[in-house]
Amino acid sequence: MTIVVSNRGPYQFSEDDGGGFAARPGAGGLASALRPLLGSGIAGPDGAWLAAAMTDGDRAAVRADAVRVPGIRLQLLDLDPDAYRLAYDLVSNATLWFLYHGLFDLPRRPRFDARWRDAWAGYEAVNRTFADAAAELAGDGDVVLVQDMHLALVPGMLREKRPDLRLTHFTHTAFCGPNSIRVLPHDSARALCASMASVPCGFHAERWARAFAASAREVLGGDAAVAPTFVAPIGPDPAALAELAAADTTRAAAADLDARVGDRALVLRVDRIDPSKNVLRGFAAYDRLLEATPSWRDRVVFLARLNPSRETLAEYQAYQREVVLAAERVNERWGHGDWQPVLLDTHDDYALTVAAMTRYDALLVNPVKDGLNLVAKEGPIVNDRDGVLCLSADAGAWDELGPAALEVHPFDIEQTAGALDRALTMPGDERAARAAQLRALARARTPADWFTDQLTHAG
Amino acid sequence: MTIVVSNRGPYQFSEDDGGGFAARPGAGGLASALRPLLGSGIAGPDGAWLAAAMTDGDRAAVRADAVRVPGIRLQLLDLDPDAYRLAYDLVSNATLWFLYHGLFDLPRRPRFDARWRDAWAGYEAVNRTFADAAAELAGDGDVVLVQDMHLALVPGMLREKRPDLRLTHFTHTAFCGPNSIRVLPHDSARALCASMASVPCGFHAERWARAFAASAREVLGGDAAVAPTFVAPIGPDPAALAELAAADTTRAAAADLDARVGDRALVLRVDRIDPSKNVLRGFAAYDRLLEATPSWRDRVVFLARLNPSRETLAEYQAYQREVVLAAERVNERWGHGDWQPVLLDTHDDYALTVAAMTRYDALLVNPVKDGLNLVAKEGPIVNDRDGVLCLSADAGAWDELGPAALEVHPFDIEQTAGALDRALTMPGDERAARAAQLRALARARTPADWFTDQLTHAG
Repeated sequence: MTIVVSNRGPYQFSEDDGGGFAARPGAGGLASALRPLLGSGIAGPDGAWLAAAMTDGDRAAVRADAVRVPGIRLQLLDLDPDAYRLAYDLVSNATLWFLYHGLFDLPRRPRFDARWRDAWAGYEAVNRTFADAAAELAGDGDVVLVQDMHLALVPGMLREKRPDLRLTHFTHTAFCGPNSIRVLPHDSARALCASMASVPCGFHAERWARAFAASAREVLGGDAAVAPTFVAPIGPDPAALAELAAADTTRAAAADLDARVGDRALVLRVDRIDPSKNVLRGFAAYDRLLEATPSWRDRVVFLARLNPSRETLAEYQAYQREVVLAAERVNERWGHGDWQPVLLDTHDDYALTVAAMTRYDALLVNPVKDGLNLVAKEGPIVNDRDGVLCLSADAGAWDELGPAALEVHPFDIEQTAGALDRALTMPGDERAARAAQLRALARARTPADWFTDQLTHAG
Repeated sequence: MTIVVSNRGPYQFSEDDGGGFAARPGAGGLASALRPLLGSGIAGPDGAWLAAAMTDGDRAAVRADAVRVPGIRLQLLDLDPDAYRLAYDLVSNATLWFLYHGLFDLPRRPRFDARWRDAWAGYEAVNRTFADAAAELAGDGDVVLVQDMHLALVPGMLREKRPDLRLTHFTHTAFCGPNSIRVLPHDSARALCASMASVPCGFHAERWARAFAASAREVLGGDAAVAPTFVAPIGPDPAALAELAAADTTRAAAADLDARVGDRALVLRVDRIDPSKNVLRGFAAYDRLLEATPSWRDRVVFLARLNPSRETLAEYQAYQREVVLAAERVNERWGHGDWQPVLLDTHDDYALTVAAMTRYDALLVNPVKDGLNLVAKEGPIVNDRDGVLCLSADAGAWDELGPAALEVHPFDIEQTAGALDRALTMPGDERAARAAQLRALARARTPADWFTDQLTHAG
């Protein structure tokens, strides 16, 4: 039997008027990729999924023993909401995410104080609950696939309780090197590295795997046993994407977008509003393009499809404000008449996102660091204008797509502006050749490949 | 012949009323260490020192051919002040310093824009002028010792012009690993690493040497030739320190300090106000000590001897304001009656600094990263109260002093507060044993040792 263990589950539950429970698909990229996979039976007839109850509705469903969804044996864990919130916000999102992507303003943050120690205790408790539930659920010699930074202590705890199981841990984010892992308090760094080092760990790119192995050796000592790592990038499901692109809502959104953009060139970005995504420098580079190359004025539109994210964290609130101001500054500097150089769109409308991906001329993906970046693969698959991908070499997807993309250097405004200019002036035959190559590269790995690799490497 | 090449020279010149020039010793740790060394003839009878003319007086002295100082053959370079200022402020201080110490708030800074490219061109021009002057000055097979990050392109330029010379480059700062060197624009990173890799490079600690070698391989490719590195920590001159500690001004300052501190315990820090020094978390840890251990209230004073630094940079202005506010916050929260928990003292008074070093009970040196940290050696040498050294493991000096110091984790407020508590409650015999060991370790390396190591490794 195979058990998937992840923070978010595939469905969210809400009580309906008749006292029953309705399940609707939940948000989150990982859950969205896993839901159809497990629903299709890839984890075997007894495959199970263990996740946290996230909402009051989820918790009520657990207590009413009403957690049932089509095709998946799902178990939700009813965790203490305060411990969970501290663990999720303060440890996973405000510490590990920042550390792994190199986002800390180190002279000022992090500060490991008494409150952080409470949050770490919550993180340990949440991980312990997951490990205990998986230990109870798993039969002799079963496979358990633990997902992401939220559950990094589960592998070690589970290994200790159930040495008979075959385990993996998969990190969906970037990972940091030995200089950065030292930022964590000593005991936390040791617990994290020891747990992950006890099982084969998977990553989306070779460089994160190497960074983890080097960090584990730094923290645990050069002689410590570190299980071999593996690299298993995920890819979009091309059939599902094609269906979305052909849907009526997408076509309507595309027509609407056509009317707004007209015959101007379209630069697109699609991101959560996250400091790792480098949205500010994207606008700075576009501003520089308009400054350095006057012929682009009035002839290009930058559509920024941005989803507000993690808004309970002050750092994200501040970044979001800066993003809005930066877009306004470009529009105030260059806009005139009916031309608004930046269209900043934060509405939650996936049809519009897919529509925009079908018709961009250049797709800007310039993260500071990114575990993979799925948009860099989705865009080329659905785009029908031979759009050019401008991709940061610090996104995991660079390792697969690099040969057909234009590199953008995430900190280099001049270089990024130059890459945008080159993308928008590229001759048609080169665009077509690169787009064809990108489509092939972006379709090379499916969610099922990624899942199967974890099964293969479990140990 | 041996030629030392450094940014700052040993003396600053000013025109006197009679049309002549007066030379007075210049500021800066490196120049202060080198001045007596070269004055003593360690570089041989023909030893020379090449440095930048920093002030209008320096430039006037160059033009009047009046650059003459006792015991040293000094040549000052009359550089274009604007190019020099851009290179010094924007490249050396605002880019390389931040990069090597991990201080960038990466979602926002750096931004390599057109202005930065101008600054980089200035940095290249300044380095070129130094390399040309050294090439002209040096005789067949001479030794040239190039100093610090301001002149990182000189080794490569000089190697190319004069393959007959024996060269080294010594970095006085920390150095960054391969993840961080990638932040630089590609061409700048390549130029920097290629130049340094062409000569034996020295560092104060093994970890900086390793980080440089890994960065050079990342940037230049795994097969690139990287000359072997060497580790040569500098140390204070014990005789000069003893003389200072015994001076009348120092004794007067010590008496004054005694009156202010009374019979309370004294925690001391001595730093430039620099984000790498971690002043804010030092106050936070002290605040936590007073919060967690009420018995310390009214029984301890934290003297922060802080020198304002690089005040032309906005980042330093902001940090300085935060430092002052953080000290005020501790005083407002805990101070009462005649007890001020923090004495923040930014006066430029070296006698008071030495006096404070003679009488601290605990010396806090908690940098985020620090190439060496000379205070961590100077303090134990002059201290006469068996004071305890609380030292960050991310200071280069940790490698030498670690066995006799208490570790402080620079990001861990709880741990740092605990280390301060342990330092101040340590039994007398343990204090005495550690202090004796620290004195021996801190005296183990002199400026002459450091200089001789460079001569030995030149190649």
